[in-house]
Amino acid sequence: MDQLNDIRTIANEIEKSVIDARRNFHKYPELAWLEIRTASLIARKLKDIGCDIKIGREIIDAESRVGLPNKADLSKELERALAEGADKEFAEPVSDGFTGVAAVISNGEGPVIGLRVDTDALRVTETSASSHQPLKEGFTSTRDGVMHACGHDANTAVGLGVAEVLTRLKDNIRGTVKIIFQPAEESIAGAYPIAQSGFLDDIDKIFSIHYFSPWNSGEVTCARDPGYFAISRFDVRFKGESSHAGGQPEKGRNALLAAANAVTNLYAIPRNGQGGTRINVGTLSAGSDRNVICDDAFMRMETRGATTELNEYMTENAMRVLKASAELWNCELEVIPMGGAPGGGSDDVFADFIMNYAEKTGILKARHEQRSFGSEDFICMLKRVREHGGEGAALSIGAGPAGKHHGPDFDLNESVLKDSVIFASGLILEILKE
Amino acid sequence: MDQLNDIRTIANEIEKSVIDARRNFHKYPELAWLEIRTASLIARKLKDIGCDIKIGREIIDAESRVGLPNKADLSKELERALAEGADKEFAEPVSDGFTGVAAVISNGEGPVIGLRVDTDALRVTETSASSHQPLKEGFTSTRDGVMHACGHDANTAVGLGVAEVLTRLKDNIRGTVKIIFQPAEESIAGAYPIAQSGFLDDIDKIFSIHYFSPWNSGEVTCARDPGYFAISRFDVRFKGESSHAGGQPEKGRNALLAAANAVTNLYAIPRNGQGGTRINVGTLSAGSDRNVICDDAFMRMETRGATTELNEYMTENAMRVLKASAELWNCELEVIPMGGAPGGGSDDVFADFIMNYAEKTGILKARHEQRSFGSEDFICMLKRVREHGGEGAALSIGAGPAGKHHGPDFDLNESVLKDSVIFASGLILEILKE
Amino acid sequence: MDQLNDIRTIANEIEKSVIDARRNFHKYPELAWLEIRTASLIARKLKDIGCDIKIGREIIDAESRVGLPNKADLSKELERALAEGADKEFAEPVSDGFTGVAAVISNGEGPVIGLRVDTDALRVTETSASSHQPLKEGFTSTRDGVMHACGHDANTAVGLGVAEVLTRLKDNIRGTVKIIFQPAEESIAGAYPIAQSGFLDDIDKIFSIHYFSPWNSGEVTCARDPGYFAISRFDVRFKGESSHAGGQPEKGRNALLAAANAVTNLYAIPRNGQGGTRINVGTLSAGSDRNVICDDAFMRMETRGATTELNEYMTENAMRVLKASAELWNCELEVIPMGGAPGGGSDDVFADFIMNYAEKTGILKARHEQRSFGSEDFICMLKRVREHGGEGAALSIGAGPAGKHHGPDFDLNESVLKDSVIFASGLILEILKE
Amino acid sequence: MDQLNDIRTIANEIEKSVIDARRNFHKYPELAWLEIRTASLIARKLKDIGCDIKIGREIIDAESRVGLPNKADLSKELERALAEGADKEFAEPVSDGFTGVAAVISNGEGPVIGLRVDTDALRVTETSASSHQPLKEGFTSTRDGVMHACGHDANTAVGLGVAEVLTRLKDNIRGTVKIIFQPAEESIAGAYPIAQSGFLDDIDKIFSIHYFSPWNSGEVTCARDPGYFAISRFDVRFKGESSHAGGQPEKGRNALLAAANAVTNLYAIPRNGQGGTRINVGTLSAGSDRNVICDDAFMRMETRGATTELNEYMTENAMRVLKASAELWNCELEVIPMGGAPGGGSDDVFADFIMNYAEKTGILKARHEQRSFGSEDFICMLKRVREHGGEGAALSIGAGPAGKHHGPDFDLNESVLKDSVIFASGLILEILKE
Repeated sequence: MDQLNDIRTIANEIEKSVIDARRNFHKYPELAWLEIRTASLIARKLKDIGCDIKIGREIIDAESRVGLPNKADLSKELERALAEGADKEFAEPVSDGFTGVAAVISNGEGPVIGLRVDTDALRVTETSASSHQPLKEGFTSTRDGVMHACGHDANTAVGLGVAEVLTRLKDNIRGTVKIIFQPAEESIAGAYPIAQSGFLDDIDKIFSIHYFSPWNSGEVTCARDPGYFAISRFDVRFKGESSHAGGQPEKGRNALLAAANAVTNLYAIPRNGQGGTRINVGTLSAGSDRNVICDDAFMRMETRGATTELNEYMTENAMRVLKASAELWNCELEVIPMGGAPGGGSDDVFADFIMNYAEKTGILKARHEQRSFGSEDFICMLKRVREHGGEGAALSIGAGPAGKHHGPDFDLNESVLKDSVIFASGLILEILKE
Repeated sequence: MDQLNDIRTIANEIEKSVIDARRNFHKYPELAWLEIRTASLIARKLKDIGCDIKIGREIIDAESRVGLPNKADLSKELERALAEGADKEFAEPVSDGFTGVAAVISNGEGPVIGLRVDTDALRVTETSASSHQPLKEGFTSTRDGVMHACGHDANTAVGLGVAEVLTRLKDNIRGTVKIIFQPAEESIAGAYPIAQSGFLDDIDKIFSIHYFSPWNSGEVTCARDPGYFAISRFDVRFKGESSHAGGQPEKGRNALLAAANAVTNLYAIPRNGQGGTRINVGTLSAGSDRNVICDDAFMRMETRGATTELNEYMTENAMRVLKASAELWNCELEVIPMGGAPGGGSDDVFADFIMNYAEKTGILKARHEQRSFGSEDFICMLKRVREHGGEGAALSIGAGPAGKHHGPDFDLNESVLKDSVIFASGLILEILKE
Repeated sequence: MDQLNDIRTIANEIEKSVIDARRNFHKYPELAWLEIRTASLIARKLKDIGCDIKIGREIIDAESRVGLPNKADLSKELERALAEGADKEFAEPVSDGFTGVAAVISNGEGPVIGLRVDTDALRVTETSASSHQPLKEGFTSTRDGVMHACGHDANTAVGLGVAEVLTRLKDNIRGTVKIIFQPAEESIAGAYPIAQSGFLDDIDKIFSIHYFSPWNSGEVTCARDPGYFAISRFDVRFKGESSHAGGQPEKGRNALLAAANAVTNLYAIPRNGQGGTRINVGTLSAGSDRNVICDDAFMRMETRGATTELNEYMTENAMRVLKASAELWNCELEVIPMGGAPGGGSDDVFADFIMNYAEKTGILKARHEQRSFGSEDFICMLKRVREHGGEGAALSIGAGPAGKHHGPDFDLNESVLKDSVIFASGLILEILKE
Repeated sequence: MDQLNDIRTIANEIEKSVIDARRNFHKYPELAWLEIRTASLIARKLKDIGCDIKIGREIIDAESRVGLPNKADLSKELERALAEGADKEFAEPVSDGFTGVAAVISNGEGPVIGLRVDTDALRVTETSASSHQPLKEGFTSTRDGVMHACGHDANTAVGLGVAEVLTRLKDNIRGTVKIIFQPAEESIAGAYPIAQSGFLDDIDKIFSIHYFSPWNSGEVTCARDPGYFAISRFDVRFKGESSHAGGQPEKGRNALLAAANAVTNLYAIPRNGQGGTRINVGTLSAGSDRNVICDDAFMRMETRGATTELNEYMTENAMRVLKASAELWNCELEVIPMGGAPGGGSDDVFADFIMNYAEKTGILKARHEQRSFGSEDFICMLKRVREHGGEGAALSIGAGPAGKHHGPDFDLNESVLKDSVIFASGLILEILKE
């Protein structure tokens, strides 16, 4: 446990910088694939700490990305990021949809350990309630409609903290640590291209950390099987033909009728006797004018399943419903994949190891009750690691009492940041000792 | 007008037999393609009168028939007809779905004139109200759920009367008269196979007579353009796959969902700026048991349009909606044509001729207001005649005050029968004089 | 274990009569509430054995029954049952929808034990495959479209066997045994009115037995929580107004459009994050004629939920969807409850007791894997028993290898009948010893 | 015809100013209720000419207006209009949704004649094709997405021209001429509040002029009965409740499901045997995020009917469908009227008078074929005038060959402007001579 004392000492020293980093990221939240400022500052900090870094194309397979903003927006975003203080050296290489960064801390032969933290924000407008801690401390989001309402600002700061601790304790490491700062987690799009890049293929053990505001600060659990729901996301466009609704309604091909039919029937996909399924059409925008037959309808949807197979059942049915709905009204259909992740949870042996570590050290308090899980992009990474013989776990750390998860008043108890740095650093060294 | 006096004399002589014939047919109504008793008695009467007759396959193209009952039912119907007094000589040849008969009265070279009367009954249960004339006179339908509620019993009787008048006056004819006793008019299925047989191809002028109970007895009009709506009829079957609704709903392919989707979307086919359209799914029967995913749904539907083109617009859209609805729920689709007719009305010059004849003779009272038309199988015949250079008209003759058209209390003023025989016979001779 | 030897001896003696009874019931299957022949023969046999019997209204609350055939059909069924050999004394009292019977075997003060067996058949047509054992042995169903395809013939025969064993061993009983022969289990309608009659209110322990053809003969398990899905069944009628589809479509109120809309939207009721739900519209029949706007649509549906609450969520949503669908097309709505049961499984302590008895005696082989459960009418009884302080268990006994459950080739290995009689009799005496 | 010579002389003198006015308006198109610049310049010009003017609230009933932009937008628009050269004196009084102006030219007792011209533009982006005349002449729209693609720029200029002609010839007038410059014609919202203001109540004869690009320049017709379709426009909002689509789909109330159901069923409203009907949901926008149950759906729709009664049939059905669709998914419904007009056409006697005038003078060429009509806001005015004993006619004047009506290349042959001024001025004086 001497090592743990060393870790605690360093963590105390850097606590303020970790909190400052979290606040900095919180103030300038960036959406999926637009984390240019964030990624550049991560890379800067890692370089300043003395880590090896991998950046952009080095850890992201270009072809595997989905849900990218268009070129024009991406280049505007680079300017925006620079104006907001992005690091000049690293901003350009991560722009254009390559906003991932990784720290590599290596000391000779040995196992490879991965830690995944995520960096993107949500389309949420932060509250202006005077009781909101970020407001009191002056670090609320500067961007209307975008907010770190899921704690990725904290995840990122902790990742940097762990990098600093382990770099300083590099001599104690026998093996390699890869800390992955993943973009586009909220859109469930960032983990897959990192997995596909091959960067994870030598990892023996990987874990992710994520905060969960409803739980008390410092509680920790690993998502166990069945764990997270598998998920697939799609953008869907129906193209028809416009016509004057009064004069020649028969000449139109009504894309709104196609979309409306799809919406109702998508929800009507049969329940599955094998387990839970989900479907949602979250948005629909259609048509140009009141007196014109609608020629264009665009919707954002997703399917889920308690297992990867159940989600495949849903996507297969959804594709058929979409196709037939287009044909129903003689429209063209375009379906654009927008991300997704398999279902599943942590490997049991590794999860037990982690929970034992928590109980043994008391850094975080082991919580054995499961949270009711949504979906997690990290499972894409875990799947890849497993395919190469490794194993992994997805950690949830309580950060409350605070605001509502994904809500405008989301917040977290910053005292958990230091504990998280200690826990993750200690855990990594513990694994390497095995 | 001497001829007309001769006609009147004969008509007076045969009036009772015409009325008796109508009552006989009324008492034993027969549905489409099952008019075995009716057709056999027509043929018998025509032969007894001394007409040449054409029967069954001679005037009906086998391949063009739709909506036939199955073989087993057809052979049962032959027995039934014989038990009800069908003529033994002619019943067999008209059974098996060939229930058409024609009288041919010819005297040398000259024009060919056609008269269409129809013979089938409706799925209506005759009223048992004591005020109902057929009840008082003891000739109500002997068959539950089947009734001559559209006056085809009278049409047939008048056709026989005209045959008798013209046969007696055959010497006055220079040319040929064809009186067609058409089956399956209510199902809009009998005219087309007669047209396709070629039997009408030498006709120069053709007209049909039909009663209409809302008008006063003895009024007559010709349906003018746009006249009758074009119509198409279909039986539709969706085949899916059953499964236990509690245990394995995902294994089913739900034919009821396909049908339900089709129903709603068929009605939602866009209105047409070019004119009136109609669609109806009249019946749907689906499924076997409450806790089983439905694997079979059967529906009877029809489309209409103010013109043949507008009806084609509807059928084309309907076929696409049906096909896509089947695909939506992964079902198989079967669409079975069940009859139909083009749209249109009488040829103007010929219609004027007829109305002038009415005004000139006063046998029937010319009514210049149009009725609001449905659809008419006769237009199939008219179309064929036109294609071969002929022309035609569809006559509606008032028969009221009486019950509701197609209603259980439908009836007609029998005095109109004699007048109709005189009018049709006189008109035919008048045309031949031209 | 001396008792068990006595039981075995008696069971050997009566095995043939048990098998004969099963074959007799199999040959004359009767649907829900029409088990007149079956119930009368049960009562006869019980009386002949020397049991006290309760019959019809004595154990069935009249007002709690649903899904009854109409009066006319019920009285025809009495005649039919008598013609098929129903017992004259008991047929009349159980006719008119009171087809339940119970044996009461009592010997002084002591606990009250209930055994539920069920008596009704399914709408299935028995196979005519030559390999089908009932065909070989000459006891296939005499009624087209009705079959004991779920083993209730065997349940009933075993119930009679247990009654005979325990009556002969009555001196060994300290307490009371109630063997309930329940009608209308397949329609999930018979258990509730028995529960409501109060007949079960003094029961301390109740269990049901049911065969399951996919499992090997002689395996036994108790359904554990969450156990059976809760279920509710409804008949639904939409009443609109007819009109001619060509002439006045605007005058109709289209009941088929209402029903079609209901069908699609019922399946689209949101999935529930709390657990599994089901919905099915099994049948729909609508409309009178192709060219008439449909004025009447009738459907049979059901909802299910992994718990009673989840089923209530479904029924509540379904009622709203039905009501709004009627309003959508200006139709009237009628919803007729057709049965149902709560969700749930056996009481754990009692189930453990039963499984221990199986392991201890080896009469049946304990199977610890759960089957994937549907719904069970018996849970209505169990709920009532629990409300009065008792507990219960639902037993599934393997009866294979045999045909498909609920399929036309369903069958069971008749050797299991004797073992079942021994097991149930022994278990009851074991419970009474406690 | 001396008068006509005078008119021609003046028209020649002012032709250039009429064309300049048209080009000026074309360059700065303004949408419904935002015609601040346009109205202010009309008022300025009328005042400069020497007309009496009525403006804003004087001719517009505030409560009868619908479809107004919100207050904030309206006040921004005033600034915008001023920046674009609106007249300072008149801009303010017409802002805030009172963008109507009228010229009153009166000379003693006599009949009151009304001329309606309209002033608003469409949401169309003007073509940048080099062949487009407005581009060549440098007066294309300065506002992206807004364009005079229906010729209201020309209507307005002609109205000003007529005002100038008649003011100069005021001595010839025995009676009163009211030239109404109506806003919000495209949204079918401007005529009704002018009618409701009472300003038209003393009018004996009223006519409107409108260009139609598919016809040759200078052809003119009056829309005869049945004329324009009646129309009603609505904005519709469904309010539900959001919930996480993965975690708690059962907690949501899905406004998109309500809207989708409404869309399909609105189109499925039965066709009407009495005549043509139309319905369209032109736009739908719904939802906030992919993984959130949609809680808000907004749509723009309209109904039409060949007569006012047929449109009422459609609106009545549509309201029921909307209400039931909201109830179906437990949502709240808000329906906001957005304008409309009765159906109908010109009074026959007055229309004949106008066509005779065209034939007699040859200023415009009488075209007796009807165009296929849409709907016309002017019928609101005509209805009011008729209710007070007056009569009216709706004139369509050919302006082609030019671009597509309502299309980005819409244009008109400017030579027709002078002829229109002459025709309208001459016609008014001719009526006053009667």
